[in-house]
Amino acid sequence: MSANTVLLDFSLDPARINDEVSRKDIVKLCKESLEKYLPGVKITYDMLTTDGYLCMLSDAATIVTIRFFLQGLITINIEYYRQDGEEPKISFENMKSLENGLRIRLEAKRSKHLPPIKRGSNVDVYLTSSDERVIEYDIDRVLFDKRSEFQKIQIVHSKSLGNMLVLDELQNIAEADLIYTETLMRRGVEEYAGKEICILGGGDGALLYELLKEKPKHVVMLEIDEMVMQACNKYMNSICGDVLEKRKDDHYEIIVGDCMSYLNKYIKEGRQFDYVFGDLTDIPISDTPTGEMWDFIRLIQESSFKVLKPDGKFMTHGNGVSCPESLEMYEQQLNKLTPKVTYTKCTAFVPSFMEEWVFYQVQRQNTDDAASV
Amino acid sequence: MSANTVLLDFSLDPARINDEVSRKDIVKLCKESLEKYLPGVKITYDMLTTDGYLCMLSDAATIVTIRFFLQGLITINIEYYRQDGEEPKISFENMKSLENGLRIRLEAKRSKHLPPIKRGSNVDVYLTSSDERVIEYDIDRVLFDKRSEFQKIQIVHSKSLGNMLVLDELQNIAEADLIYTETLMRRGVEEYAGKEICILGGGDGALLYELLKEKPKHVVMLEIDEMVMQACNKYMNSICGDVLEKRKDDHYEIIVGDCMSYLNKYIKEGRQFDYVFGDLTDIPISDTPTGEMWDFIRLIQESSFKVLKPDGKFMTHGNGVSCPESLEMYEQQLNKLTPKVTYTKCTAFVPSFMEEWVFYQVQRQNTDDAASV
Repeated sequence: MSANTVLLDFSLDPARINDEVSRKDIVKLCKESLEKYLPGVKITYDMLTTDGYLCMLSDAATIVTIRFFLQGLITINIEYYRQDGEEPKISFENMKSLENGLRIRLEAKRSKHLPPIKRGSNVDVYLTSSDERVIEYDIDRVLFDKRSEFQKIQIVHSKSLGNMLVLDELQNIAEADLIYTETLMRRGVEEYAGKEICILGGGDGALLYELLKEKPKHVVMLEIDEMVMQACNKYMNSICGDVLEKRKDDHYEIIVGDCMSYLNKYIKEGRQFDYVFGDLTDIPISDTPTGEMWDFIRLIQESSFKVLKPDGKFMTHGNGVSCPESLEMYEQQLNKLTPKVTYTKCTAFVPSFMEEWVFYQVQRQNTDDAASV
Repeated sequence: MSANTVLLDFSLDPARINDEVSRKDIVKLCKESLEKYLPGVKITYDMLTTDGYLCMLSDAATIVTIRFFLQGLITINIEYYRQDGEEPKISFENMKSLENGLRIRLEAKRSKHLPPIKRGSNVDVYLTSSDERVIEYDIDRVLFDKRSEFQKIQIVHSKSLGNMLVLDELQNIAEADLIYTETLMRRGVEEYAGKEICILGGGDGALLYELLKEKPKHVVMLEIDEMVMQACNKYMNSICGDVLEKRKDDHYEIIVGDCMSYLNKYIKEGRQFDYVFGDLTDIPISDTPTGEMWDFIRLIQESSFKVLKPDGKFMTHGNGVSCPESLEMYEQQLNKLTPKVTYTKCTAFVPSFMEEWVFYQVQRQNTDDAASV
């Protein structure tokens, strides 16, 4: 049950759009083609715009706007309400015929139609990539949908990805995303056996679950949002096992609280780790590295190095490779850190993100060299 | 340079949409919110529809349609032409503010906005999944764009996926898709050393290139479209090496021609293979297994088994897991094949498809059992 918005467009010689006679012909051709699928459709309104012309057609339930842009483009938007189980007014195959037929009749240089955009349905299937691209997911069920003190928490089911955690409309992790966790921890490259580890965030439990398989001495996980853990414990067991259910054993402990206050506590106590994982919010996509979020990222990293052993590593996720500006800004921040650090990075295609993601491994600079002088 | 269509929607109590007074208030609120970004916007037209009401606003260059659906939904479409380098009329951040502000003022139960849909630009970034979902790719360049005798061939560059072959608007293979080829051939499971292999299609060269690394005795590849091979040889070397450039050596030969006539020739000659790969067009998504495409698929498979040794295997790709009906239909076709066959299947998430894909391995039924009787 949703409104369907069907978008079509055609590129034409601008001269034909500028000319009133040819414009009338084009409207006539469009109307004739549409009548096949929308019988009784009539022109209800038209107007000149500063960059062309607009014409509206309607059969009283479907609204069609045809817009002429002097730059050489015609856009057609078809919108109507589609009840559950009701066939679309123009099927996928018919949309192809409509597009191809009109392309030929209009002598268009190029044409395009998109699958219907579904609006207002109970299950929201549109999520956005790191660089603000729209992606329609094959989400068919919402399993969990609540707002915690900190964020909007949803667990949805995708046919391709399994259950998926969505926080504040951002895809976070899905059952298909083992590669995310394995790349974040650099499985097979880093040696975790016998090590002391601190996870900042990580409420989905996947990183903790995978790290424990490597036999570390102890992992402490600092997660602020109890509700995320409850939701993941219920719906994401294939990626987090029973770590969120049990909350602690001899080799790990989950602490519900603000990671900054615990980091400060550890700094005061002189507690030291071999690895600190930054598994918090994504680094922001803004033009300048200012604002609360960047301050928070800087603070987190500086505090993390205060609890890291001299050869300890800070491991974190960055952003999509399609956001080079954001990645560069993060790297500039790393270069300004105290103590001086070096970093390596690697990438992996993360299924639920639908993009190639960058992960960072940050270390104090030349600790061995300094020691050997 | 493209027309931008910005889509927003709000779910409201249907009673408020039915009521004329409250409808006028809502239009007023929408107009006030829009004026901030579109100064001078005026109501130019309105009409009652069978399922609600439509109101159009314009500042002479931007057209806004606000539609009320009695089912409890308001859709807002904002459309204007955006020149290259021109800032969007409503930025990403402002869209969030507009949506959140209106959601609160309208007391909406839910709301949503999508990134602007870009229409008529030189680089088409929208492709469709197997189940007709829209996916916006991070395509930034078109490297090759020609129509051959058989299909429209494009090679585009994606920031996440590298160069990508697109045939008739369908994503075919990208540089990031080694997993596709490795799953199709079941690397590490099947043993190709010393084997005789026939590839039907496979014009991108990736399967041939990967198979040759396994030291088969000989591979013959039957591809009909010379232009696809030329394009891939020029732009997809990271996945096909020099196999398309060289065309043959002691261990392989590429034949440009219709695979059916060559299969018939091999049947006549009694030539036999250990493996036949079906790397042709995707299996169709239609409701019934009829039509030319299904006939072709049946014919290809039956002919393939005529050139396969008794224990030979037919290896092919199926469809997305989000198309269970299509997969089921393909499996029904397999069950009807002569000779009787059995099949196994496996899946992999293919980056350029942005979905989990199913691959089939088909063999004659119980050949060993039959022989031992």
